[in-house]
Amino acid sequence: MKKSLEKENLNGYIVANEKNILYFSNFLGGVRLLIPRESENILYVRGVNYESAKRTAKNCRVKLIKMVEDADLSVRDQVKRLNLSRIGFDVINASLYLKLTNVLKGVKLEDQSTLVRELRDVKDEKELRYLRKAAEITSEGMKTAFEVIRPGLLEYEVAAEIEYAMRKLGSNGVAFDSIVASSVRSAFPHGGCTDQKIRRDDLVMIDIGAKYQNYVSDLTRTVVVGKLSPKQQKIYEITNEAQQRAFQAIQEGVKACEVDAVARDFIKKEGYEKNFVHNLGHGVGLDVHETPILSSENKNALKSRNVVTVEPGIYITGFGGIRIEDTVLVHKDGAERLTKAVYTPEVK
Amino acid sequence: MKKSLEKENLNGYIVANEKNILYFSNFLGGVRLLIPRESENILYVRGVNYESAKRTAKNCRVKLIKMVEDADLSVRDQVKRLNLSRIGFDVINASLYLKLTNVLKGVKLEDQSTLVRELRDVKDEKELRYLRKAAEITSEGMKTAFEVIRPGLLEYEVAAEIEYAMRKLGSNGVAFDSIVASSVRSAFPHGGCTDQKIRRDDLVMIDIGAKYQNYVSDLTRTVVVGKLSPKQQKIYEITNEAQQRAFQAIQEGVKACEVDAVARDFIKKEGYEKNFVHNLGHGVGLDVHETPILSSENKNALKSRNVVTVEPGIYITGFGGIRIEDTVLVHKDGAERLTKAVYTPEVK
Repeated sequence: MKKSLEKENLNGYIVANEKNILYFSNFLGGVRLLIPRESENILYVRGVNYESAKRTAKNCRVKLIKMVEDADLSVRDQVKRLNLSRIGFDVINASLYLKLTNVLKGVKLEDQSTLVRELRDVKDEKELRYLRKAAEITSEGMKTAFEVIRPGLLEYEVAAEIEYAMRKLGSNGVAFDSIVASSVRSAFPHGGCTDQKIRRDDLVMIDIGAKYQNYVSDLTRTVVVGKLSPKQQKIYEITNEAQQRAFQAIQEGVKACEVDAVARDFIKKEGYEKNFVHNLGHGVGLDVHETPILSSENKNALKSRNVVTVEPGIYITGFGGIRIEDTVLVHKDGAERLTKAVYTPEVK
Repeated sequence: MKKSLEKENLNGYIVANEKNILYFSNFLGGVRLLIPRESENILYVRGVNYESAKRTAKNCRVKLIKMVEDADLSVRDQVKRLNLSRIGFDVINASLYLKLTNVLKGVKLEDQSTLVRELRDVKDEKELRYLRKAAEITSEGMKTAFEVIRPGLLEYEVAAEIEYAMRKLGSNGVAFDSIVASSVRSAFPHGGCTDQKIRRDDLVMIDIGAKYQNYVSDLTRTVVVGKLSPKQQKIYEITNEAQQRAFQAIQEGVKACEVDAVARDFIKKEGYEKNFVHNLGHGVGLDVHETPILSSENKNALKSRNVVTVEPGIYITGFGGIRIEDTVLVHKDGAERLTKAVYTPEVK
C-alpha cells in the first residue's frame, strides 16, 4: 500500500470500510485505519474491541477511542501531527466526508477507493488458502443439499441443513443469506428462502456460501427432485453450456467483458438473451461481491490470482429459473474451479 | 415521511441505504428510492431483482435499471423532470455524494439521515409483531445452547446447534455472527467463536440473534458448565443487578443517558467501571445496531415503541467477561423484555 501511495503522490490514506481495515490490519472491528506513507499504521478501535485488537491486529499500532471520543477527531489530530497534506480515502459516507473536509481544512482529500480494490483483487497465498477452504466447505454444503432435499421439505429447512453442515465443518457463519428458491420462485435470481414446500419435478435454485477466516465462497446449483421436463432440460443445458464455455475462456490477460460475452452470446444465440438479467460474475474475497466484475462493461483484463464467480442464469417469469455458478481462480494459462459440486440437474 | 419532508421544507428525498429502502418499500434489494414530496415514490432496481420487486414492493413504482445504466443518472433525470430543488438524502457514500452534487447542479442536497432514523426508531404494530417473533426464536436458540453445551464441545459447534435450531424455527439466517466465547476469550466483548474447547467451570459468553421478516433480535447470556467460582459469582451478580436495575429504569420520557447511568453507576460503585467498556445498549429493528443508543452521551428521551438492548458487561483481561443482554420494548409506564431466556449462570 505504501508503494501505491507513493505512486499516487499521497502521504496518507484513511480506511473506513471494515473489510478494508481487516485486509490491512488482520482485525475485523476497527473504526478507522490511518496509513501514513512514512510511518506506522494506526488502527482506531473502541473499547469493545480494544483487548482483542491488541492481540490480533498486525502491521499497526492500536489506539483506543474512548466512549465519549470522536474517532475522526483523533484521526485529524494524528494527520496534523504527521503533517499529512494529501490524503486518500477508501469508502466513506458523505457525512464523514463533509466532516473530514471540515476538520481537515487545508488538507487535500481524495476518493482513492480503487487503490485498495486493486490490491485486494489479486490474492496472495494465505488468502488463496482461506478461499480454497471456504470453497471446500461450500461444496460440502451443496452435497448435503443434494442428500437431504426431498418433496415436502420447506425451502428454509433445506437451508437449515446446508448451513448446519457447513458450520460443523468450520464455516464462520455464512457469506450471504442462503437462497433455496423453488418452483416459480426460482425465476427470482435473489429469491432467498421461504416456507414454500419443495415439490416433485420442480426447479430448486440453491445458492450458498461458507465463510472461513473471513474469506467467502459462492456456489449455485439448480436441480429438480425427480425428472426434468423437456423445457427445463433445454434451459439447463443452455445455462450449463454457457457456464462451461465462459470457464474455458478465463485466463490472465483476457478482458472481463470478453468472458461475459462468451456466455452472453451463447445464450443470445439460443434465444434467451433477455432472460439473462445480470452480469456473468463478480470478484470474491473478504466480500462476496467485489471487483473484478465480469460484465459487458468491464474492459479490464483479468489477472492471475483474481478469484471470480462464473454464473450465467436464465430466468423465466411464471416458469422458473436456472443458474449454475462456481467460484474460480484465474491462472496464467486458464482457470481453476475452487467450488467442486457435481453438475447434476436431477436428484433422487 | 412526506410529513417529515414538509416540515424540513424538502421537496424530495433520496434513499440509498438498503435497510432504509426496505423500510419504505417493503423490498430488500433496491438500488435507490426517490421520495418526491408531491408524487409517487420510485424504487430503482436492477434486473436481478426486478420481477421480485414488482411482486413484493409497496408504496412505490418500480423502475428497472438496465445493466449498462447508471441508477444515479436515472434518479437525476427524474429529479429534473419533477423540478425538485431541495433534496435530502439518508446515508450515501462520499463518491456518490460528489457524483450527485455534480449531476444535480443547482439542486440543494442535504444530509438528512436523521429523518429516517426518527421514523424507524418508533416501531409500528407490524414491526413489533416481527420483532417479537425474532425475539421468541432467539430465546429458543438460547434454550438450545443451554441444552447442548458441555465440556469438550468446540465453541463453533455450540453456535452450529443454536443457529440450526433457530433456522428450523423460521429464522431467516442470523442477525449477526453468533458469539460463543469461552474462558479468557469471554473478556473480548465481540469474541466471535473459534475452535476452542468449552471447559468445565469456564465462563462462556453466548450472544445470538435471529432474524424474522428482516427484523432482528439480540440476546446474551453468560454461563459456566459446572459451578461458578467466588469471583465469577461476584461479577455475575453485579452484572445481573446492573441489568435488572437498568431495565427497571426504562420507560417513555426517561433520557437514554439516565438509563445508561443506572447500570454504569452501580458497576462503578462495585469497582468495575473501567471494565464496562461499551454503551449500555442500542436500538434494534431492521438493523441490529440502530438508534436510539443507550449511552452516557445520548440526552434524548426514550419513546414508547422504541426497541433497545440492555446489556451491561464486565470484562477482565486474562480472566474472562460476563454480559447479560435482553432486547426490550419501551412502554409509556415501563419496559417489556422481548427476549425471554432464563437467568441462570450455571448449567448442568
